[in-house]
Amino acid sequence: MQIAIVLFDRFTALDAVGPYEILSRAPGAETVFVAERTGPVRDESGRLALTADRTLDEVPRPDIVVTPGGPGQSARMTDATLLDWLRTADATSTWTTSVCSGSLLLAAAGLLRGRRATSHWLALDQLTRFGAESTGERVVTDGKYVTAAGVSSGIDMGLTLLGRIAGDDHARAVQLMVEYDPQPPYDAGSPAKAPAHLVEPLRARSRFLLT
Amino acid sequence: MQIAIVLFDRFTALDAVGPYEILSRAPGAETVFVAERTGPVRDESGRLALTADRTLDEVPRPDIVVTPGGPGQSARMTDATLLDWLRTADATSTWTTSVCSGSLLLAAAGLLRGRRATSHWLALDQLTRFGAESTGERVVTDGKYVTAAGVSSGIDMGLTLLGRIAGDDHARAVQLMVEYDPQPPYDAGSPAKAPAHLVEPLRARSRFLLT
Repeated sequence: MQIAIVLFDRFTALDAVGPYEILSRAPGAETVFVAERTGPVRDESGRLALTADRTLDEVPRPDIVVTPGGPGQSARMTDATLLDWLRTADATSTWTTSVCSGSLLLAAAGLLRGRRATSHWLALDQLTRFGAESTGERVVTDGKYVTAAGVSSGIDMGLTLLGRIAGDDHARAVQLMVEYDPQPPYDAGSPAKAPAHLVEPLRARSRFLLT
Repeated sequence: MQIAIVLFDRFTALDAVGPYEILSRAPGAETVFVAERTGPVRDESGRLALTADRTLDEVPRPDIVVTPGGPGQSARMTDATLLDWLRTADATSTWTTSVCSGSLLLAAAGLLRGRRATSHWLALDQLTRFGAESTGERVVTDGKYVTAAGVSSGIDMGLTLLGRIAGDDHARAVQLMVEYDPQPPYDAGSPAKAPAHLVEPLRARSRFLLT
C-alpha cells in the first residue's frame, strides 16, 4: 500500500507529519514524500525542511494521496504540474485525502465538485467557491475523499482512515503507541470555542479573504 | 529566543514536529534543527528525513532545548557528544524540554535527578531508574524542565510552554491557528483507556523492558 505525501514550498509541517505518523503505521504501508523535485522542501517558517525522496512523476499511482496545506498552497492553485498529478493519481487511488488548505488544491484540481469536504476554518468559504459543499467538521469522508480541518486535525483524519483500512483495533493500538490522549491546556481550538477577540483579528488578516 | 530541536537517527517525527509547530509561532522565535552532523536525518521508519541545519557545536546556548524520542533514543543513551551537549545547553537554557522517550536522554545526561518528569507510557519505569520521579501525567513542569508523554503529547507540551512564554492569549491564538480541537475517533490514547488486549502485547514486546 503506497502512501504518497505531497510536499511544496511553504507547506505546514504538522499537516504532513500528523497523518504520516499515523498512516505509516498501517500494515504494509510504504510511505513516500513526493514533490516536483527531490531534495529538501522548506516549510512555511523556512526553519524546517522535509526531504522529498521521489518526484511526482516517479509516483504516478499511489494507493493513498495525502495533500497538506499551508501558506504555500496559494501559489500552487495554478500549478499545472501539481494539479495534473493530483488528477492522475486520483484516477487510480483508493483514498484521496487532505489536511488544512490542502483541500483547496484537491478542489482546484476539480476533485471535490459537489462533494462534502472540510478545510482550515479560514479557508471554508474559498472551498465553497470551488464547488465543494464545505462543512465545519473536523474530518469529512465523502466516498474515497477524506478531508481534514486545520493543521492538527490530520492526526484525527489519519486515525479515522487507518480504522477504515486496518480495522478499529489496529487504529486504537496506533493511537495508544503515539499516546494520543489529547489534553490541551486551553479550549480555544476552533472559532466557535476561542474568544471573539482572538478570532476576529485572524479573520481580518486571513490570506483567504475573498475579494 | 533560540529554540534548538535535537535530531538523531530513528527519532519519532511527530515528537519533534508537534512542539515545533507550536513553539515556532512564539514571538521572536528562531527555531533551529540541530544534530551531530548537518543534513538529512532519517526518522524511525526511514521514510521521512528532516534536515539538521546546524551541528550541535554551532548551537551551544539555545534558550529552549527540545529533545524528541523514538527508537533511536536507546543508541544515544551512551552518546557522549549528545549528552555533553545537553548538559552544556542546559547550563544556560531558559527551558529544557522533551517529548516521549526524549526524557530518557535528559535523564541519562543527569538533568532529571530528583525531578518530577514524564515519558512515553512504556518508558516510565526506565525513567525512574535514572532517578527521576516519573509520573503518568501528559505534561510535567518541574522548574525549567518540561517533559511530555508519548509522541502526540508534544503538542500539549508546546502549548503549555507557549502560554508560559508568551501569555495565555498568544497560546490560545496559536491553538486556534493550528485548529487544535482534538476529536479522536477512538478513546484509546493511554494505557488506562485502551482495552487490555491491546495494551498487554505492546508492553510485552516493548524495547523498554527492564532486564
